[in-house]
Amino acid sequence: MAVIVQKYGGSSVADVEKIAQVAAKVAATKQAGHDVVVVVSAMGKTTDGLLALAKNVAETAGSEGREPARRELDMLVSTGERVTMALLSIALGARGFDAISFTGSQSGILTNDRHFDARILEVRPHRIEDELARGKIVIVAGYQGMSYRREITTLGRGGSDTTAVALAAALGAERCEIYSDVDGVYSADPRVVDDARHLPEVALDVLQELAEAGAKVLNAQAVEWARRNKVRIFARKTTDSSGARETISTDGPLEASHAVSRVRAVVGCKPVLFVGAPSASLHTLLRVLAREGVAFVHLATSPAAATVAIPLANCPDWARTERALRAEISELSCHAGDALLSLVGDGFSSGGTALEVLRTLELAKIEAQLLDASALRVTVRVAERDLDEATCALHRALV
Amino acid sequence: MAVIVQKYGGSSVADVEKIAQVAAKVAATKQAGHDVVVVVSAMGKTTDGLLALAKNVAETAGSEGREPARRELDMLVSTGERVTMALLSIALGARGFDAISFTGSQSGILTNDRHFDARILEVRPHRIEDELARGKIVIVAGYQGMSYRREITTLGRGGSDTTAVALAAALGAERCEIYSDVDGVYSADPRVVDDARHLPEVALDVLQELAEAGAKVLNAQAVEWARRNKVRIFARKTTDSSGARETISTDGPLEASHAVSRVRAVVGCKPVLFVGAPSASLHTLLRVLAREGVAFVHLATSPAAATVAIPLANCPDWARTERALRAEISELSCHAGDALLSLVGDGFSSGGTALEVLRTLELAKIEAQLLDASALRVTVRVAERDLDEATCALHRALV
Repeated sequence: MAVIVQKYGGSSVADVEKIAQVAAKVAATKQAGHDVVVVVSAMGKTTDGLLALAKNVAETAGSEGREPARRELDMLVSTGERVTMALLSIALGARGFDAISFTGSQSGILTNDRHFDARILEVRPHRIEDELARGKIVIVAGYQGMSYRREITTLGRGGSDTTAVALAAALGAERCEIYSDVDGVYSADPRVVDDARHLPEVALDVLQELAEAGAKVLNAQAVEWARRNKVRIFARKTTDSSGARETISTDGPLEASHAVSRVRAVVGCKPVLFVGAPSASLHTLLRVLAREGVAFVHLATSPAAATVAIPLANCPDWARTERALRAEISELSCHAGDALLSLVGDGFSSGGTALEVLRTLELAKIEAQLLDASALRVTVRVAERDLDEATCALHRALV
Repeated sequence: MAVIVQKYGGSSVADVEKIAQVAAKVAATKQAGHDVVVVVSAMGKTTDGLLALAKNVAETAGSEGREPARRELDMLVSTGERVTMALLSIALGARGFDAISFTGSQSGILTNDRHFDARILEVRPHRIEDELARGKIVIVAGYQGMSYRREITTLGRGGSDTTAVALAAALGAERCEIYSDVDGVYSADPRVVDDARHLPEVALDVLQELAEAGAKVLNAQAVEWARRNKVRIFARKTTDSSGARETISTDGPLEASHAVSRVRAVVGCKPVLFVGAPSASLHTLLRVLAREGVAFVHLATSPAAATVAIPLANCPDWARTERALRAEISELSCHAGDALLSLVGDGFSSGGTALEVLRTLELAKIEAQLLDASALRVTVRVAERDLDEATCALHRALV
């Protein structure tokens, strides 16, 4: 029987009513004859609430400067998804369905030991397979796993997407459905660009560029797993029962013959910090960022200086990271107030598309600095206040 | 180095400020040169809140009559203590102390597989011992363990006490300190009896009778573990930093030479249900109660009928239990409105003390029915509305 993995994000399970609605959707999928594995996030803003509690308790208890240990933060925040999984399992039971919930560790999600930002190394879903064979619906706590040291780890922001895709790969699932409060991928943020178009199909490599450029539809690590394991992703709105409007991933770049269905999208990303250091400190800069688990999206080096762009979404606690950097690099400069703007698509000409982007922005009288140009993406740096206008200009001219 | 196990109940860790206060107490114990293991409950009313959420989601999702599976309830409520343990560990870190938190399963608390009311079978605290040897303070999530099926279990109401005493036994701890919002054991509930006396020392067997009679100071299973393993218990108020007013358990019954420090206490218990069934259904009655994990405190059988008294505190979901009973016993009778009143102490004369209790209540014009009389306890059934008056009368005449 074909396995379907469904993932429901925090806003889809924010309260009792929404969990009951998710139970109805899951039940319908089971009744349609599928084996169903459901990956859930923590309810609503639970994770943020728990982190605020940790900060609060650390400040109240003492001021010896010790940050909350990431191992302990993982112990704390991993409870959020466990509450949701148990409640969804209970909701399915109340509808007369046999369901069983598993933590990340029980699901066989094995990670490295980088607490609070772990990467999945391997998935051994034996218990899930056993329960599916017994006809049960399996609910899995997203965003978490167990390290080889047998410690509870979490996967960083958006980590439940990664759990879902990695499980879909390990189970040979027919597809991985990602439910959230958006109905897939658009050619630009519809709140910014009036005539943004919905994109029904996007190649996985383009999807990965979109995620890395800052599109919120899917976690970049999740798309990477999907690419490596050829998992088909369906991104839908939770409230869209028909799936009438969704984005489906396609495998590999589109062929030349598909050029007519060329996918292009404009993606903005803010807030972003631009962090500079003397070139002599480059190794230190990279080492500290790696140790802190902060991913940057652009690196520029000159004989004099090195600069990286850090989307704050990649950086759960910038104050901590900045302290760690300043402890080792005395001449560190941090610049806030700029944003990243990317044109993502396929079939870009190497220099040509970058030039088109720069000319378009020049015509619109928006200052921009070219950061990256690849076959799938052109990224520029603009002032945060210009981001929306620049997005509209690029979308009008090039999408 | 001597190990001290401290247990803090829900009201002692109800908010961030209280957790910070607990961190200060734990830090002081560590600085005094002890190895410290801390067992924590869920914050305030967290467990009740999670159970209400489960009930709510089951009612909202469906009405196919399926109760929440106890395995899933365990998945849900076990998160409560995990939040507290991580926060306390973070608070100790902020004070500059090395602390590490462990779940019940990581602490080696192995239980049977009776979900939601599991019993500890064995404790294998290897990870705790390793971390103590490294000089760390170890924080343990109370109330939970892992079954031999590798499932998360919880220990029933007051189960964190049992965790603490069982760990103290396994670690050969010098003592087990139970912190709560009361400063130990009194000769009666001070809110009911004005001149109730604080009892500085109570023998473990008397303590067990007190717990079983309904005194809230300690979970009965915890006292049983203490008796079996000769664990010294110190029951204190969390806010009492000096331990000036505490109850210390003594090992075994007091010797005749200690008769002068004879311990006596009056304990009331309500609400209590008296459940009757035809004697022919006795086996069924006992089997269903055992299956549902409901402990009764008195059993009376006659050729015609069997009756048990069930303190509702022993019965997390009476509606469920009653449905289970009625499904198998058609002529079940349930009587609410009565309470249990016990005189607990040592050196009772078998019939004599019971007679004194009955006479005292007769003089006070309170109707009472004798239920049990042992060397350590006399228990009568009184109307709930008479309980306070009866408590005062017994305390005045016999304590």
